Parts: sequence; C-alpha cells; structure tokens
Amino acid sequence: MYTLSQLSNLLEEELQKTALPSYPENLYQPIQYILQLTAKRLRPALTLLSCDLFKGNINDALPVAIAIEMFHNFTLIHDDIMDNAPIRRGNDTVHQKWNNNIAILSGDALFALSMRQLIKCDPSNLPHIIDEYTKAALQVCEGQQLDMDYEKMYAINISQYIEMITLKTAVLLAASLKLGAMCAKANNIDSQHIYNFGLNLGIAFQLQDDILDVFGGDKFGKQPGGDIIANKKTFLLIKSLELANIDQYDIIKSLIDNRNEKYTTYEKVSKMTSLYTELNVKEITETEVNSYYQKAIACLNEINLPNDKKEVLQLFASQLMKREV
Amino acid sequence: MYTLSQLSNLLEEELQKTALPSYPENLYQPIQYILQLTAKRLRPALTLLSCDLFKGNINDALPVAIAIEMFHNFTLIHDDIMDNAPIRRGNDTVHQKWNNNIAILSGDALFALSMRQLIKCDPSNLPHIIDEYTKAALQVCEGQQLDMDYEKMYAINISQYIEMITLKTAVLLAASLKLGAMCAKANNIDSQHIYNFGLNLGIAFQLQDDILDVFGGDKFGKQPGGDIIANKKTFLLIKSLELANIDQYDIIKSLIDNRNEKYTTYEKVSKMTSLYTELNVKEITETEVNSYYQKAIACLNEINLPNDKKEVLQLFASQLMKREV
Repeated sequence: MYTLSQLSNLLEEELQKTALPSYPENLYQPIQYILQLTAKRLRPALTLLSCDLFKGNINDALPVAIAIEMFHNFTLIHDDIMDNAPIRRGNDTVHQKWNNNIAILSGDALFALSMRQLIKCDPSNLPHIIDEYTKAALQVCEGQQLDMDYEKMYAINISQYIEMITLKTAVLLAASLKLGAMCAKANNIDSQHIYNFGLNLGIAFQLQDDILDVFGGDKFGKQPGGDIIANKKTFLLIKSLELANIDQYDIIKSLIDNRNEKYTTYEKVSKMTSLYTELNVKEITETEVNSYYQKAIACLNEINLPNDKKEVLQLFASQLMKREV
Repeated sequence: MYTLSQLSNLLEEELQKTALPSYPENLYQPIQYILQLTAKRLRPALTLLSCDLFKGNINDALPVAIAIEMFHNFTLIHDDIMDNAPIRRGNDTVHQKWNNNIAILSGDALFALSMRQLIKCDPSNLPHIIDEYTKAALQVCEGQQLDMDYEKMYAINISQYIEMITLKTAVLLAASLKLGAMCAKANNIDSQHIYNFGLNLGIAFQLQDDILDVFGGDKFGKQPGGDIIANKKTFLLIKSLELANIDQYDIIKSLIDNRNEKYTTYEKVSKMTSLYTELNVKEITETEVNSYYQKAIACLNEINLPNDKKEVLQLFASQLMKREV
C-alpha cells in the first residue's frame, strides 16, 4: 500500500512530465500556468489510493487521475470567470492574468486535453470510465449552475443547499474514488460503496468549510467571514434564517441587504457571527458535519476488504476533517 | 447508398429524439435552444455519408454524428461570447438571450454531453474515435485562438491565414468524414484520404465565404461587407495588402483605421470593394478556391472504392461550392 503523500508526489511528477502543446501560446500558457500552481492534488491522489486499495496497478489509474486533475483545473478557470474572482491559490486567476476570452478557450482546451488522457485506459474499461467521468462532469456543471441560481434567490432550504454542494463538490471526490476502483476492476458493489464514502465525505468537507469561513480564523489564507461579506448562501446562513425569531430574521435581512452601506464590512461580519453564535448554528453545523462523516465511514466499512487495508482511507478522512491534508 | 438530404433528415430526427436532462433549467434550456435552431447539420451528415460510403451501418455512426453536432454547437455558444455576437442563425445567441455565465456553463455541459454520446460506439473502436475526436476539438480551439490573436495583429501572411482557417473550420469537416469512415472500419489509408478531402474542401469553403461576404449580395442573410466593416482578416484583405502599391496600401490602412470616422460604413465597404476589384483579388481568391477544391477531388479519387460510390461525395462537394447544400 502507498501512503497518500507518496501518491500525491507521484501524481505531481507525472503531471509535470505530461507534455502539453505550446502553440498557440495564448491557448496553452494559461493551461501550463494553472497546472503548475501549488495544489494538493487530492482528487487524483484519491483515484490512485482507491486503485491501490482494490489491488490494482496504480499505473493503470494514472491517466484517469491526470484527467481528473485537468478537469478540476478546467472548472476552476471557468468558475473564476463566473465568480469574477481575481485570486486563486494566492496567484492571479487566468482571466485576471490574461482575459475572459482566453480563459474561456483555454478552459475548453483543458477539458479536451483531460478527455485525451482517457485514451490510455484499458479499452475494455473505457466505456464505463467515460460514462462515469462525463456523468460527474455534467453534475459539476449542474452544481455550479444551482450555485449561481441560488445567488439570486432568497429562500433556499437546507435540502436544496445539500443538493447543490453534493453536485458542485462532493460528486467529483466520489467519482475520483470510484474511477480508481474501476481501474482496479473492483466489483460494482464495492465501487458504489467507495463512491458513497466520497460523496458523504465531500458533503462533510464542504459543510466544515462553511464553519471555517466564519470561525476558522485566518489560518486558511482566507479573509474570515468572506462568505458573509459576499452574502453567500451557506449552511450557517440558511439554518439561521430557519431558526431566527422575527427580530433576528430582520437583523439578518438588514445585514444581507445592507442598504446605504449602513454597516461596515467589519460590523457586518461581527454582527452576523454574533447571531450565528446566538442561534447555535456552529454546533448544529458541526453535528451535521459529523453525521455525514459517520455516514462516510459506514460506507467505507461496507467495502468487502480487510479492515487494515481500509485504514489508509479512514486516516485520510480523519485528516481531511482536521484539515491536515 | 443514402442521399445527403435523407441523412440530414435522419440526423435531425435522431437529434430531436435525444433526451436531454431538464434540471437545472438555466443549464439545459440554452442547450435545448441552440440544438433546436434550424441548421444544415452538414458535419454530422458527412459522418453518416462517409460511414455509408465505406459500407458501414449508419446506425453505428449515429452517436458520433450526434456528438459532432453537439460539439459544433458548443463551439458556437462559446465563440459567440468571445465575438460578442448578438445573432446566430437569425436568433438571439445564448449569451444574449441568457447571460455570459450561463453561456459559458451550458457550453461546458454541452461538450460533456457530446462526449457522453461516444459511449455508444463499438468499444473496440472507442480509443481511436476519442483520439480523433479530441484531437479535432483541440485544433478547433487552436484555430479560434489564432483568429483572436490575429485580430490584434496587423501583418498576417497568407500561410498564417490558411493555418488558422484550417484549424478553425476545415479540421472539423475533415474529422467528421474520417470518424464516419472509422465507424465503418475503413482502412487507415482510405480514412486519411477522406480526411484530406474534407480538409481541402473546408479550406475552399472558407475562402469562398470570404468572397461571398463582399461580392455575394445579401442572399446569404448577411450584411454585405460585414468582414470589411469588422476589419476581419480575410484572404481578400491579406492578399490586397500584399499586392497593393504604396498609394493603395495607404488607402487600405486608412480604411481599416478609419480615424475620426472619416468614412461612413457605406463608403468604407464600397471603397474597399473597389480596391479589391482594382487589385483583382476576387479572381485570385477564386483561383485559390478552385485549387483547394481540385485538391479535395484528387483526395477523393485516391480512395480505393468504385467511382460510382464516390459520386455522392463529389456531388456534395460541388453543391457546397455552389452553396446549394
């Protein structure tokens, strides 16, 4: 068995070795640029880890792992245009460094390049792999669309929110694991279990992200309360709107609307944070995180393999929850 | 043997039958919308025609044909954003009817949907088909990038221009034909001949488009001289800059710059058209069109099949040149 960090390193090496075309420069330089930014390579490392778990040869899963990392980066390029985000991983986003048109087109090319990686898969596996891969790709688009739709809607409920983060974030973690299992020719039942492990873990991860944005301090390199400032629909906000009495509801609404810039950014973050504390939503969200984490572990336990083999994924899950990976 | 119009109709039926997801609406309605606009379906019809020519069962090529039409429409959605084009096929473009973000994302989803079509191909053929398909996809991106790059450059030569239109336009026609041949399991040599037929025909088609924009009247539903108004680099303009004497060169330059709106749109088009006539570039371009057309026919002749079988493609090529298809 390999460790996660061994696999991340292997992946990084392989990615740097992957020859990209160089002409036209304005198409391929942005792709080179985003792929070379320091990143955790979590998704593709999970693909290799899952392949290894099911006794596959990790070299058989490498093309899929690279494809997933390319796909993920393609979505980052396009999402950053849509979100008008200037910074990604501490560096200029592609559309910021070049322009929107170049970002659209180099994203498209990166998606095509990611598909080209799949050619190297075992042909007998290829139709299933493309099925799983493109299904996940579509779902990620669906999640991003719901996220954009929700920005303009006031009344989002918890189940709509969970659906959105499932599609936008959790599905790709789940598919990364399942595709690794498929490369190892694991059976369908175990492949589904590892998918469900990833799905629940992905939801737990995103909910935890919502907590950390408000209560995580600045150790994650983000501005604390960034979601509050941007009026992002998060689990904390939706839950608060659900639990608030009339007075609290009015305060939340006035903080979101912030007519005539009544509140400074600092006041907005601090007042919303106080309300979250008053309404106990941090603890409620933590309970939810733990519930999805436990579901993930239960799915892992279902996999028909000796427990000691599964320890590496259990360790990964607990490290992810502590943000140590 | 099927006729082109039979195949176009079959394709249209199949496309209308292809079930698309419906939720989220803002993701899938734009896709429904663009696929339902009246279109010639030339590329996918060529895929079926080529499959039929090589004695394949056209049902085996249908998924690839649908994939190609979806891919083509995906590029239209994204190109229209980049070109800031409000109208496509007499209707609002997707970004005009919805917005840029929805157009980016629904384009991405359409690309993913097009790849999902390929799952239905004969698995033994799939790696080659994905190779050819994604290679063409990348080249179309490269062509679009060069087109954008050239907009900002003054001195483009003919060979750069031919490279650009080859990638942007001709490659997809060529790949459509080759993929049809591959679905019929034609041999590599004949597959390459039909690819080269499509490549040369595609270049001839685009050069003829450059002529028709200026000299075609308004029967193609376009504003005459649209390329002149937009300062688009066309074969006519590049050739004129090559052949012009100093006085003519200065006039062209002043028409392109059009400082202080010295010329009305009408004057600009009519003066540039006069210069094209003076420099004989219409005839020079026609000679070039014919030369690529003849190359295409020569490639067709190389295919190891009885001449009467190849007549349908010969007819298609000549109809395309007369804009009857």
